[in-house]
This record gives sequence, C-alpha cells and structure tokens, in this order.
Amino acid sequence: MFTSKTTVRVRYAETDKMGVVYHGNYAQYLEIGRTDALRQIGLSYKSFEDSGIMMPVLSLNCKYLKSAYYDDELTIITTIKEMPKVRIHFHYEIFNPQNELITKAEVELVNIDMKTNRLTQSPVVLIEALAPYFKS
Amino acid sequence: MFTSKTTVRVRYAETDKMGVVYHGNYAQYLEIGRTDALRQIGLSYKSFEDSGIMMPVLSLNCKYLKSAYYDDELTIITTIKEMPKVRIHFHYEIFNPQNELITKAEVELVNIDMKTNRLTQSPVVLIEALAPYFKS
Amino acid sequence: MFTSKTTVRVRYAETDKMGVVYHGNYAQYLEIGRTDALRQIGLSYKSFEDSGIMMPVLSLNCKYLKSAYYDDELTIITTIKEMPKVRIHFHYEIFNPQNELITKAEVELVNIDMKTNRLTQSPVVLIEALAPYFKS
Amino acid sequence: MFTSKTTVRVRYAETDKMGVVYHGNYAQYLEIGRTDALRQIGLSYKSFEDSGIMMPVLSLNCKYLKSAYYDDELTIITTIKEMPKVRIHFHYEIFNPQNELITKAEVELVNIDMKTNRLTQSPVVLIEALAPYFKS
Repeated sequence: MFTSKTTVRVRYAETDKMGVVYHGNYAQYLEIGRTDALRQIGLSYKSFEDSGIMMPVLSLNCKYLKSAYYDDELTIITTIKEMPKVRIHFHYEIFNPQNELITKAEVELVNIDMKTNRLTQSPVVLIEALAPYFKS
Repeated sequence: MFTSKTTVRVRYAETDKMGVVYHGNYAQYLEIGRTDALRQIGLSYKSFEDSGIMMPVLSLNCKYLKSAYYDDELTIITTIKEMPKVRIHFHYEIFNPQNELITKAEVELVNIDMKTNRLTQSPVVLIEALAPYFKS
Repeated sequence: MFTSKTTVRVRYAETDKMGVVYHGNYAQYLEIGRTDALRQIGLSYKSFEDSGIMMPVLSLNCKYLKSAYYDDELTIITTIKEMPKVRIHFHYEIFNPQNELITKAEVELVNIDMKTNRLTQSPVVLIEALAPYFKS
Repeated sequence: MFTSKTTVRVRYAETDKMGVVYHGNYAQYLEIGRTDALRQIGLSYKSFEDSGIMMPVLSLNCKYLKSAYYDDELTIITTIKEMPKVRIHFHYEIFNPQNELITKAEVELVNIDMKTNRLTQSPVVLIEALAPYFKS
C-alpha cells in the first residue's frame, strides 16, 4: 500500500454562494493529491504524457461529510491499495485544519497509449517506483 | 418518475490539455441539469434558498464512458426516481451530439433549514410539483 | 461595425462566498459572447482551429460596475469595431436582467498558424463574413 | 512600495485544449498572489471579511506575453505601489520556470463596509502593516 500526504489552500474562486467550497471543485484537489503522490516517489504525471501514455479518468466518487471554507489549508491523503495494471485506483481522504475528515473519494484512471489510442499497461517507471510498497 | 432534458454547449474553458472536457467540470453540467429540471416544473432552486432551504451535495458519482469535445452540444437527461424526502437523488445520463451516452452520474442532495442549520423535509412546493409524476 | 447579442445563465459554481459571480469567471462569459457572435454569421471558432488557425488571447480588460447573481440571465453584447487583421478586438457590454450595464470588457486575440507557430492573417471566411458590416 | 513573491503550480484542470493555461484562470493566480502578499505581512483577507470589510474587484487588466504549461511552477510577484485608501491597486508580474515574464496584470479592489454596503477606508491593520514600506 502506498500513501502520501499533501496540502492545498482553498481559493476564494473555489467557494460558492453557500460560503463553502463548491462540491465540483474537489475533483481538482484529488488531481493535486495524485500528482503530488507521484512526485513524492520521483515521478511526474506530465512525464507519462510526454512519453506517450495518458490517463483519463474513468470514474469519480465523492462523499461530502463536512464543508471546507475559504483559506482553509486542507490535507489530502492519497492511497494506492493495489498495484496498478491497465487501471489505477486512487483512494482519498481530505481533512480540514481541525483534522476532521471532510471528504472521502475514489478515482479510477485508465492507461491509454496515445499513439494507438488503446488501453495499455501502467508505465514501467510507475510499477518500479511502487513495487517496494507492495512487497509481500 | 420525473425526467427532464436540457442541453449545454461545451466551453473552451472547460476543456483541458487532453483536448476534452475536464472530468471535474461535469459536476457543473449536472448542476445545470437539475436546475433546469426544476425550472421545467415551475420551480427554481434559487427560490428554495431565498425561502430558507439550501441543498448541499452529499455525494457525487460519475462514470465517464466517452469524451466530450469543445463546442459539442451535450444533452443532459435528469431523472428523479423516488419522491424526495430529507434527501433528493438525481440520476443523470449525458449524450453527445452523435447521441452516444458519454457519462452516467448520480448526485444526492440533502435539505438543510438555513435558520437552524438542521436537516429538514423537501420544500412543499417541490413535493406538490412532483406529485403528479409519482401517482401510483 | 458588427454587433451580436447572446445570453448566459449564471451557474451556482460561478458564484463565490460574496454571493456574486467571481470576477475571474467573466472571462468565460466573454468567450461565449465571441463564439456565439461568430456562430451568428455562420462561422465557428472550432472550425478555425480545425483548419489550422488558433487565436490565443493577448489581453483582457474588465471593468466590474455591478455584481451578477446566481441564476441571473445575463445579456452579452459583443462588438467588433474594426476589421480583423493579425489581431482581432472584441468589445463587450454585459447587462443584468434589470437591463443595467454590469461589466465592460475588451479582449484582444491574435491569429497563429498552428503549423508554423507564427502570426498570420485572420481566416478568409471570417473576413468575408464580416465584410458586409464594414462597408463604407 | 511593497513587493511579495509566491509560487503556484499549474493544475491539469487549468489547461485548455490549446495545451496551455486558459487565460481566464490567471485571475485565480492573481488572487493567490495578493492573498499571499497579505499573509507575508501577518494579515489575512479572510480576517478582513470576518471584521466586516469586503473587497470586491473593480477592474482586471491582463497582458499575456507567453503561455504557461501544465505542472509549471509559476512565480507571482505582487506589488503595491501606493498606500491603499478606499481603493487598493495590485500590480503583478508572473514568471515561468525559465524565469521569463509571461503575464503582466493589474487588479483594483475597493473596500466595502458589509454592514452599510458603502465604500470605506482600508482596514487600519492593513495601513499599519504597510506603513513601513511607504516611509519617505
């Protein structure tokens, strides 16, 4: 299992007239969570695209437990529970500054070879970087 | 069962470097779908808030089947399958201009009394407007 | 001079905690204004890109005179005052449902040949479609 | 004169199909720039609103000189050149990772007393915190 932690500060633009973060904006926080998770093991999603593999999102599931507010520094815990294959699952928990769990989410991505536009396996560098976390 | 249909045209701002609509932006399309569904039965979400009931989103589930492209006119089918109580479930199907199903989604909202900040029943006007669609 | 008129309804997502449309979101309304202006003379910005000309924004100037609110249907008046050359200027006025001028804006685009990545003249179809409006 | 420096990393969601940051999203970077500028002198915009003063944007001017790309870490230089009164002017320069100036911008805010909804002077704490930078 691989887990990483990153923080993001709520922008004014991300709030809505209810005074809280608009629910649709959490998708961006999750994107930041997984990008930063990769960066922490020396990888960049950008380099995957540069090398010809893109990873569109197949599904997004969010449960909103509490609201987040302007200027809050949120903590995003991103977890990969299974070794990625053609698909990669990310599990998320987002905490507010009071350390309360405010959002739980799952995002499923799929690897696409940009030349052939077909499904492909996860990049080798990703598999290698994650391997130490999945030793039995 | 109550079903409504609305259309939305993809904005340039909504695309990302993959050349398609960023997955997180569908939350806005779903919001448009349910707002327009209400409008078609003579109601406005705005009037609910003005009368003291707000409806934050509890959960969002999206399955992305195909991509949507800049300037596409998408068709959003919004369905209410059960009479709303404290919670309201919306089911969605989004179609591209070729009439292919590109996204399936569910959004669950909850009614909050803005004075007490507590759960409450759906507005009476909503129940009355939907009643004809749920006659047994 | 060429003038067109289009409408856009304010989305919940576009408001911020001040209860009004976030100022940065007007850029999207302006984009809708000019896209729709082109559509009204039989053109599509999408077709320009498909034919190899893209039009990035060089400058954006907005003056915010009054606020816009959730669910407001705004009217966008888009004006081209001079025949486009390498650059195209759009002038905008946005009105609220009470017909008050709420925003004035200018956007300047430039034509780029996507093959050479260099400046180029406006597409011929655009010049031809606009010609009748600039007869002296 | 008061100048501060902050960084922001480009999100995938902020790019568009041209492969670069959508021009309208720079408004959010500018917002981050001024929020962080205030934080660096011990203030928070949030506390201004909590104390009853809000600062809506009166005008936004952006010149786009070069594009910004996904995952770029941008540097935002935020400058206040004149002591704020009823209005506050922010001047901006944004640099890419190659240290090239990519955007110049100005944003003008105005102080509004949230109780009376009328113009008011800048918060005393802001004037005091800025005073050392404007000594003659």
